[in-house]
Amino acid sequence: MHRKIIGVIGGSQCTPEVAELAERVGEEIARRGGIIICGGLTGVMEAACRGAKKYSGLTIGILPGNEKWEANPFLDVPIATGMGDARNVIIIRTADAVIAVDGEYGTLSEMAFCLKFNKPLVGLRTWAIDPKIVHANDAVDAVNKAFDLLR
Amino acid sequence: MHRKIIGVIGGSQCTPEVAELAERVGEEIARRGGIIICGGLTGVMEAACRGAKKYSGLTIGILPGNEKWEANPFLDVPIATGMGDARNVIIIRTADAVIAVDGEYGTLSEMAFCLKFNKPLVGLRTWAIDPKIVHANDAVDAVNKAFDLLR
Amino acid sequence: MHRKIIGVIGGSQCTPEVAELAERVGEEIARRGGIIICGGLTGVMEAACRGAKKYSGLTIGILPGNEKWEANPFLDVPIATGMGDARNVIIIRTADAVIAVDGEYGTLSEMAFCLKFNKPLVGLRTWAIDPKIVHANDAVDAVNKAFDLLR
Amino acid sequence: MHRKIIGVIGGSQCTPEVAELAERVGEEIARRGGIIICGGLTGVMEAACRGAKKYSGLTIGILPGNEKWEANPFLDVPIATGMGDARNVIIIRTADAVIAVDGEYGTLSEMAFCLKFNKPLVGLRTWAIDPKIVHANDAVDAVNKAFDLLR
Repeated sequence: MHRKIIGVIGGSQCTPEVAELAERVGEEIARRGGIIICGGLTGVMEAACRGAKKYSGLTIGILPGNEKWEANPFLDVPIATGMGDARNVIIIRTADAVIAVDGEYGTLSEMAFCLKFNKPLVGLRTWAIDPKIVHANDAVDAVNKAFDLLR
Repeated sequence: MHRKIIGVIGGSQCTPEVAELAERVGEEIARRGGIIICGGLTGVMEAACRGAKKYSGLTIGILPGNEKWEANPFLDVPIATGMGDARNVIIIRTADAVIAVDGEYGTLSEMAFCLKFNKPLVGLRTWAIDPKIVHANDAVDAVNKAFDLLR
Repeated sequence: MHRKIIGVIGGSQCTPEVAELAERVGEEIARRGGIIICGGLTGVMEAACRGAKKYSGLTIGILPGNEKWEANPFLDVPIATGMGDARNVIIIRTADAVIAVDGEYGTLSEMAFCLKFNKPLVGLRTWAIDPKIVHANDAVDAVNKAFDLLR
Repeated sequence: MHRKIIGVIGGSQCTPEVAELAERVGEEIARRGGIIICGGLTGVMEAACRGAKKYSGLTIGILPGNEKWEANPFLDVPIATGMGDARNVIIIRTADAVIAVDGEYGTLSEMAFCLKFNKPLVGLRTWAIDPKIVHANDAVDAVNKAFDLLR
């Protein structure tokens, strides 16, 4: 049995409030033994990884570029794809469930792939585009709902 | 100067009404000398290519699989990517402007990439998720608006 | 029936002699009604496209980057993948047969994919790494052998 | 500082002798604290991961398909790319150094990408196609040479 892999998606730029929310999401995933997969950059991705590392969670980043130095400093395993935005598909294919925190158009593309692939998708202050998205009120609620959807 | 390349995106399954709309879009693009790029499969993609071939338009399909036999019969150039849904990014990167006709989650992912890359995007009976999408009333209007956005 | 698509692979930098060889290969492919697919850049790729356009051949370039301006000026359809060297796989998957002209490590990767996918592969002054490569003496011989392998 | 990531490449089918060699390579990488990245399937990939897990090494598999159940049972993190052979590029971009063990055409494509990207490449009973490949005599020698090249 593999450990559960939870995708955390959101913008590479975000407000301090959103970053705090993402950090709490990362903490909760790590406390429950989940592995975080994300796009490996700044903003929501970095905040979630920072949170996870407080609880020794494992953090995987699927980077758009060729070089690992573009990774945020809280990644255990930076994966350099060199495939630009096509790497969004890899994040969603690999995650067992996905939590979207805020986010712009890149996040929207990832949410669309979640819906297409029937992956469990929890939304926190993000695009409300489809009834299949399970909306959450706060970070703990979001992680609870993500793990519940995996049972 | 390259000829203009217009992306036509939409579902691989669609109603006869939507297929007729897509076919008219394909006709109009070809009449104006545009090249069609699409996902190469059935539904909206096939209908647009069928329309284009009535006016000897050039049709390019970016296929998700490894094999060209999955291409619809109205493609001049079937490109086998073997990259699954990651091929959606290629369609949008290559198009000078994009027309979305109806569509489900795959189309939504492509519209999100359009918005991210600031590609001109015209919508025909499709997702109304962002003010940057230029909505059109019919096929001729859609193709007019797509070419206008390229000036 | 689709027209035959012939991949021409080789370095983005090459000697004038190699460029002349590649140009002759492009001419011959176009004279026989073949479509050229290549990596879309300079060197062997540009020379082959230049040759093809003398005979009004159709030229398709699968570009590594996001932008079509990196395409050589003899491409009819520049496909912007944004996927870097992963685009090599697309060239080989799409070609019905492949002609390698000279070439360095990128060409070697493409030849390896040809061999893996069992695509007919003709070599002109290139890597001699496998008995499955059909070696040719000059441009006409190479194109003859490529079309013969497709019967 | 990230832990060193060592790519182990080779065929999905191999003889028992080659599997034993790959397993020893995996053991040595893990003993030195390296993370293994590989294609995630059977043969050399599985053997290297099995070796690494004896010493609690971290094992990452970059899978060609969409589904994680195709992963070998010794992977800690199966990454489902859905990109087929294009995933070979990701393995090489991500590895700090690469060890090729035996291998067929897929391995050859990966070695070509190593050479193109100037990644340190150690060969064990594999393709001898270029003077930049550092050949090793046994598993310990191969891992020593890979880590030496990273200094």
